[in-house]
Amino acid sequence: MENKIKVGIIGATGYAGAELFRLLYSHRNVEIAAVSSTSFEGKAINEVYPALTNEKTYILCDMDGVIEKSDVIFAALPHGLSEELAAKCDGKGKVLIDLGADFRLVDEAEYTKWYGLEYKYPALHEKTLYCLPEINREKIKDIDIIANPGCYPTSIALGLMPAIKNGLVSTDSVIIDSKSGVTGAGRGLSQTTHYPDNNEAFSAYKAGLHRHTPEIEQTLSMFAGKKVNVTFVPHLLPVNRGILSTIYVKTEKTFDEIYAAYEEAYKNEKFVRLQPKGSFANIKNVRCSNYCDISLHFDEHTKTLIITSAIDNMVKGAAGQAIQNMNIRFGFDEGEGISMLAPSF
Amino acid sequence: MENKIKVGIIGATGYAGAELFRLLYSHRNVEIAAVSSTSFEGKAINEVYPALTNEKTYILCDMDGVIEKSDVIFAALPHGLSEELAAKCDGKGKVLIDLGADFRLVDEAEYTKWYGLEYKYPALHEKTLYCLPEINREKIKDIDIIANPGCYPTSIALGLMPAIKNGLVSTDSVIIDSKSGVTGAGRGLSQTTHYPDNNEAFSAYKAGLHRHTPEIEQTLSMFAGKKVNVTFVPHLLPVNRGILSTIYVKTEKTFDEIYAAYEEAYKNEKFVRLQPKGSFANIKNVRCSNYCDISLHFDEHTKTLIITSAIDNMVKGAAGQAIQNMNIRFGFDEGEGISMLAPSF
Amino acid sequence: MENKIKVGIIGATGYAGAELFRLLYSHRNVEIAAVSSTSFEGKAINEVYPALTNEKTYILCDMDGVIEKSDVIFAALPHGLSEELAAKCDGKGKVLIDLGADFRLVDEAEYTKWYGLEYKYPALHEKTLYCLPEINREKIKDIDIIANPGCYPTSIALGLMPAIKNGLVSTDSVIIDSKSGVTGAGRGLSQTTHYPDNNEAFSAYKAGLHRHTPEIEQTLSMFAGKKVNVTFVPHLLPVNRGILSTIYVKTEKTFDEIYAAYEEAYKNEKFVRLQPKGSFANIKNVRCSNYCDISLHFDEHTKTLIITSAIDNMVKGAAGQAIQNMNIRFGFDEGEGISMLAPSF
Amino acid sequence: MENKIKVGIIGATGYAGAELFRLLYSHRNVEIAAVSSTSFEGKAINEVYPALTNEKTYILCDMDGVIEKSDVIFAALPHGLSEELAAKCDGKGKVLIDLGADFRLVDEAEYTKWYGLEYKYPALHEKTLYCLPEINREKIKDIDIIANPGCYPTSIALGLMPAIKNGLVSTDSVIIDSKSGVTGAGRGLSQTTHYPDNNEAFSAYKAGLHRHTPEIEQTLSMFAGKKVNVTFVPHLLPVNRGILSTIYVKTEKTFDEIYAAYEEAYKNEKFVRLQPKGSFANIKNVRCSNYCDISLHFDEHTKTLIITSAIDNMVKGAAGQAIQNMNIRFGFDEGEGISMLAPSF
Repeated sequence: MENKIKVGIIGATGYAGAELFRLLYSHRNVEIAAVSSTSFEGKAINEVYPALTNEKTYILCDMDGVIEKSDVIFAALPHGLSEELAAKCDGKGKVLIDLGADFRLVDEAEYTKWYGLEYKYPALHEKTLYCLPEINREKIKDIDIIANPGCYPTSIALGLMPAIKNGLVSTDSVIIDSKSGVTGAGRGLSQTTHYPDNNEAFSAYKAGLHRHTPEIEQTLSMFAGKKVNVTFVPHLLPVNRGILSTIYVKTEKTFDEIYAAYEEAYKNEKFVRLQPKGSFANIKNVRCSNYCDISLHFDEHTKTLIITSAIDNMVKGAAGQAIQNMNIRFGFDEGEGISMLAPSF
Repeated sequence: MENKIKVGIIGATGYAGAELFRLLYSHRNVEIAAVSSTSFEGKAINEVYPALTNEKTYILCDMDGVIEKSDVIFAALPHGLSEELAAKCDGKGKVLIDLGADFRLVDEAEYTKWYGLEYKYPALHEKTLYCLPEINREKIKDIDIIANPGCYPTSIALGLMPAIKNGLVSTDSVIIDSKSGVTGAGRGLSQTTHYPDNNEAFSAYKAGLHRHTPEIEQTLSMFAGKKVNVTFVPHLLPVNRGILSTIYVKTEKTFDEIYAAYEEAYKNEKFVRLQPKGSFANIKNVRCSNYCDISLHFDEHTKTLIITSAIDNMVKGAAGQAIQNMNIRFGFDEGEGISMLAPSF
Repeated sequence: MENKIKVGIIGATGYAGAELFRLLYSHRNVEIAAVSSTSFEGKAINEVYPALTNEKTYILCDMDGVIEKSDVIFAALPHGLSEELAAKCDGKGKVLIDLGADFRLVDEAEYTKWYGLEYKYPALHEKTLYCLPEINREKIKDIDIIANPGCYPTSIALGLMPAIKNGLVSTDSVIIDSKSGVTGAGRGLSQTTHYPDNNEAFSAYKAGLHRHTPEIEQTLSMFAGKKVNVTFVPHLLPVNRGILSTIYVKTEKTFDEIYAAYEEAYKNEKFVRLQPKGSFANIKNVRCSNYCDISLHFDEHTKTLIITSAIDNMVKGAAGQAIQNMNIRFGFDEGEGISMLAPSF
Repeated sequence: MENKIKVGIIGATGYAGAELFRLLYSHRNVEIAAVSSTSFEGKAINEVYPALTNEKTYILCDMDGVIEKSDVIFAALPHGLSEELAAKCDGKGKVLIDLGADFRLVDEAEYTKWYGLEYKYPALHEKTLYCLPEINREKIKDIDIIANPGCYPTSIALGLMPAIKNGLVSTDSVIIDSKSGVTGAGRGLSQTTHYPDNNEAFSAYKAGLHRHTPEIEQTLSMFAGKKVNVTFVPHLLPVNRGILSTIYVKTEKTFDEIYAAYEEAYKNEKFVRLQPKGSFANIKNVRCSNYCDISLHFDEHTKTLIITSAIDNMVKGAAGQAIQNMNIRFGFDEGEGISMLAPSF
């Protein structure tokens, strides 16, 4: 294929960056033109990740090298670095797909409150969009600074969209109990993610204090047309990949009415699979895939809708969704490079 | 020690039975007099569990053999079998400690609703008590049919007791998101607990439909002095042992007031460890131990108290608590045989 | 693509069958025409494996239905069933790719000794070939009954081929210590593969008695041009996927000479990656991929060459290699459908 | 008990140190008098390991504080630090039990070769003994500088002792393929032991180059009465605890003769359990216990004896054996504090 677009990955040796590499390597419409890493500049990417060894050698360069050689730049960086990067790309006909948090929040005050930083280039924030295909697919086609959603927020937004948009549940008390695999914590070392400390272990962390909270509330408020507050408690699961969010909302509607609304909302969505009544979404069924599996249950005696929403945090929660956004932006088949099914075992 | 009491285990080859054997083997005040198993009668227990191999050989006999040889009978059986057993023990000066569900519910109608059975010996239910030491230690000393609490209910009752008893939280919307290790599903084979199907997997199950729901509501209602309904959703964790219950309740009180109530409630409880503010209970810190670790967090912007309560489902959630009840019943040191600390790794 | 060939899977609900489905689903040159299952006939495959849910519904039919509708039939069956199947395919222009053991052994006496069965259709065994692409790629193009190698034997044959073929090592004492993930034991339930019994566990099994022994010796003997006996001890690893074989052979050669022979042997093999000196093959780097990673180390003081060879038992050890064989047989790109890189985490 | 001896732990926040604390806490003949840590001096031990929280607070002091307050000092330190420590204890009536490598090798040249250091206090090495109770129980009673064996060497020495001492196997080609849980790598962080990098992973490491090699050869040579060389390849298992060593030796004897020699050798050893013929030692059956399980199998067609030997690397391989040595040294019941059975699940 001669007309492949050139893609680059900034932060290619972090987990999200490595996952981008893995998926883009098999994408028929792109060619990986450059990869960068601050920590491993000058090394080959497969010296860091032997699993990425293939016919060609990809030497890690610096950020500017990636920008220069690529039409599309994927950035997988810690927060606070992407604005500068967007400024460098701006006006050069490049598309930036940012997997970080810097362009996700519409309200600068929220960004400052949760991340402790101010906007350096406010004008760039006018050009960006929070791109979750199932919400705003059409608008993505025109965006050059694509804010790729966070992992927890993706699982939660897809889990609640039909219920809130259709006014089927109360938004007065939204309880979200999420559980994430350890890759969510990244490649960096910490005692918590040391194997013997995390294996056969399980606990909550940052209860009510996780930085994804404003992002979640921003999206749910958009669905509701009014401010929605949530209680959000993440937990760390002793698995590599996967997020399961269990969401509790009160409702006065019947279960059948709610279930029908979800069927309607997702009937044409390739990557959202509403589970049959009585079944439960399981992270194993979405592992290494771009699917989001959603199941609905109803506790009659407390009038509580129980939503469980499962994604792979590295794919639909990061690299896969970024590629889905690129596919939409460039008019490729939306599933190109990310249509593989999960291994069940 | 010459005056050791004789203990027997009925159902010794199920997981709870094997755990009872493991712990009672090191208990200084008892001698294991007999063990039984329907499936493996005639075999030695260490042919089924090589880990239990020691200086002596314990041949698995039938139920009657255990009753005859033991002063205290631990029963770890599927529901529906313990009433008959209690009838056999009744009037013979034997103490029965039942790890099953048959004697836990005070209201026969609830038992019938959730388990599909009726009481055959209603009079025996007058002689029993739901024995959770931290709730009703003193009464246990006089009981000969000890109903040992379920695993999920133990974690939840201890997690909520101080808050509800002191009227510090609303009981209108109690959301309980529990996660259990796979031993909770027992030794019996199923596709769900087949290693490759459960490893790197995570999902909810029986949302709103788990049989521990009436037991949980019975205890919380007793604390509240009125009927309390809960939304209870269990999940299956890819670990062997441990339950973490994350509990969400609304409150008008300050966090400090609530925390102080928990400190007061548990200051003399050896096996309940209130975690420092900011810390999180983790199943790894209670594994293979009889401790219950409780942590409290507060989501200010939704006025929600977040309680996480961790136990080992096989120890404080089953065999360990049964031994704790025996220790109380017989006036032994309450921690005898169950005071070991958890391996951190 | 209009000229896709029609493939069918017999035994589609076993692990190897489900893996074939997963991989063939993304293969550009084929269309899955039919799938069968004795246990689940009449159900959709995604009722058994929700992860396989996609735009189309695949109803499980019987064996004859698959043969009729397919040009290529993949059989993933217990031993003893494939001969009958081959007889049904014979003379109809169908290609059978058998993932079982029935056509692997050249010597019927060995088959009878290890599997307890005799050949029913000896003539069919004249038409088959043990198809390991890296050994006999060219011959595969003409074969209609393709005997797909076993998982352990694949890892071992690739690990030893350059050393034995080039006469670099002694074949008097070949020690093979292999470790396999639990999917190798299949979907069927057993106490050994019950999650709590296998998690945090590790042991050898069938030491010196595993049925792959004659297959291993057959291949190594072919390399050596004389009978080679091996000591083969498999172990069960608490992971889902992956085989690592650690192989010990004595040598009088220098390490550099041996390493060079491996470089030469595999320089054009897409799916065999010789690791740099000093590095170690790891099952994580081949998981869900068709690669075989091989590393070489030398214990100078005992003149022992230490070979470690890693594959994914479900891919290069089963479904992936079967597809590789199909690709060769039909002249497709050898890597089509199986070129994905392993997720590193 | 009034006459408890005072024990101290130097390096109490490493894994071996924490395991010593856990076990000594339940030991009836000792009182933990002091614990030290260079990294966490001034903190309580349960701030580092919440699992160790109990009725009493143990503040981490410095090394000298431990020496002063204790009759027995357990040292769990990186190599190169214990000689200095031994010098400080010498002549003060203190017993030092060293879990490190500094006193294990009799031959200083070997120590220098493998650890790069020379002896500073050669005289102290005259007073020490490599203390493996099953080998030299009687001599331990007189030793004040107890060299506690390494984890791999313990599993291997116990696995081979009866075969080599009785001259039943050839020592010309001893192949040892060992697999260890991750706690063997300690509490320190590394990429290899980062959870997502080690989970679902498996590989060899330091093939032929592990520092336990001279210790293994020293012990086997003592058994054989001549120099024995071994090929030793360790692997990292994705579990927390446990070592399984699979050992291959050639023999001209019958299996029954060999099995009988093992029965005889271990018939009175509480902590060594020879498995029935046909059974396999499994790390799960020794986890958190001081047992060493040994199984024997015979590959008739290659005349190879296959020995598998399982221990918990933190207990029989470190802290438990150290306590066993203390028990022997002080005339306590040899099993005191370490007689617990392993949880099977």
